[in-house]
Amino acid sequence: MKKKIGYQGVPGSFSQQALSEYFSGANPEELLEFHFPEFEDIFINLENNTIDYGILPIENTSTGGIAETYHLLNEYDVYIVGEWSIQIEHHLLGLPGSSIHDLKQVYSHPQAYEQSKPFFKEQGHIKFIPHNNTADSARLVMTLADKSIGAISSKKAASIYNLAIIAPGINFSSKNYTRFVILSKRKEFKDTADKISLVLTVAHSPGSLYKVMRHFEEAHLNLTKIESRPIIGKPFHYLFYLDFNGNIKDASVMKALERVKNSCLYYKFLGNYPSYSLPSE
Amino acid sequence: MKKKIGYQGVPGSFSQQALSEYFSGANPEELLEFHFPEFEDIFINLENNTIDYGILPIENTSTGGIAETYHLLNEYDVYIVGEWSIQIEHHLLGLPGSSIHDLKQVYSHPQAYEQSKPFFKEQGHIKFIPHNNTADSARLVMTLADKSIGAISSKKAASIYNLAIIAPGINFSSKNYTRFVILSKRKEFKDTADKISLVLTVAHSPGSLYKVMRHFEEAHLNLTKIESRPIIGKPFHYLFYLDFNGNIKDASVMKALERVKNSCLYYKFLGNYPSYSLPSE
Repeated sequence: MKKKIGYQGVPGSFSQQALSEYFSGANPEELLEFHFPEFEDIFINLENNTIDYGILPIENTSTGGIAETYHLLNEYDVYIVGEWSIQIEHHLLGLPGSSIHDLKQVYSHPQAYEQSKPFFKEQGHIKFIPHNNTADSARLVMTLADKSIGAISSKKAASIYNLAIIAPGINFSSKNYTRFVILSKRKEFKDTADKISLVLTVAHSPGSLYKVMRHFEEAHLNLTKIESRPIIGKPFHYLFYLDFNGNIKDASVMKALERVKNSCLYYKFLGNYPSYSLPSE
Repeated sequence: MKKKIGYQGVPGSFSQQALSEYFSGANPEELLEFHFPEFEDIFINLENNTIDYGILPIENTSTGGIAETYHLLNEYDVYIVGEWSIQIEHHLLGLPGSSIHDLKQVYSHPQAYEQSKPFFKEQGHIKFIPHNNTADSARLVMTLADKSIGAISSKKAASIYNLAIIAPGINFSSKNYTRFVILSKRKEFKDTADKISLVLTVAHSPGSLYKVMRHFEEAHLNLTKIESRPIIGKPFHYLFYLDFNGNIKDASVMKALERVKNSCLYYKFLGNYPSYSLPSE
């Protein structure tokens, strides 16, 4: 039985790269890749068993949390079973033979443009046109076949869509990473799991978030991330997404989670999985 | 001397509306309005005294914090001196006489599309094309003068650019608000100020964020919001943006702030200003 794995976007996208790297230990013969146009398609296809695993970006180290992934993690009953990070390098691509002076418009995802903005500020003559996907912007440039049109995309997309790299590494921070989460309909608890993700809400009263955090502190659990996201329909009330170190097979972790759960208005367990460390760390 | 006030975007934008409402108590004769293409222009023009006050969106209740505003607040030495929230209602606009069946493409800001996504899922035939600004998308529709092209924009933009409202109120959450911050180069401490904003970083070690929060708890200061944002160039380390209730003329608040400052690696005061409450609250 082949493992069915899915990503959002098109071949050559960073999501496909992250998926390939995450599953690089598996026999390629045993993997079957699917790709979908929307983030939500990953959740829908996990729920109806079209795919066994899905991957979605959750955070970029230059531009922050990816709102849609956070939102959908709370909406659907799927679990985080792993994470992976890849270094993101953006290149300015164009038709072979075109130069930076030929370019009048570049297509890309707004995040890629944000991550490369200082470069384009220096190149005052190039207009940015937002597109849904970096890899698909490269495909578009190939299709339009116009020397004045370029894309911000990856090296891999340049090679897939036969484009030239007009300017390499245009992202302003060389330490530009995107972290992905690997999702499954079934909970998986590996012995090597050392990161737990939760989403919760607390009472809209003084000190209520602090009281939740105290349970982590008392159990000596290191809270590594806290992300607040809006609650739709309840203006200026927030969902808190928390990551902390631990394995739920550890009795003290389970006890702390029980206490956290009891001090929240709403609580949802998102997963316990092996954390990814950057090579340099 | 006229008060020079600036917003990002074009006339008819939600930013202009928020600015007008915030300064509605002032004599219109004493106000001089400026508008700029980029968020950063607000900071640059405050610093070089082209404008006295600027306004920028910081948070939407359906889609969350606005990354660029958070980032720039930390980069520049300007202060938050006020806040304002407006209800955001998105309408589907088109040329007069066109119907929803004529539309093949709609332009808008990706946030407006995200806030109206369920509507477009039902209308499978309309393709979304991202644009930098909702009001400018309306202007574009007027300019292109093509019945197959529409925009997601405001009622005001419809009236400014002579467009018809093809479908009103298409945002999925009727409780859809955007909160704006009013910025100035000079600190202002009003007696009515009851909200303080800070940005800080803590040591990358267990319990360090908790230790900072304890100082708020001990001084009975209600922490109303915590937002984590990436630190550029330091992957997976975070800036924390905190909002809490208080006035810095209160000695106990000052004392708590001193303790917070001393327990942080990095600390920046962003402002103390009167909070905005939704009419229903």
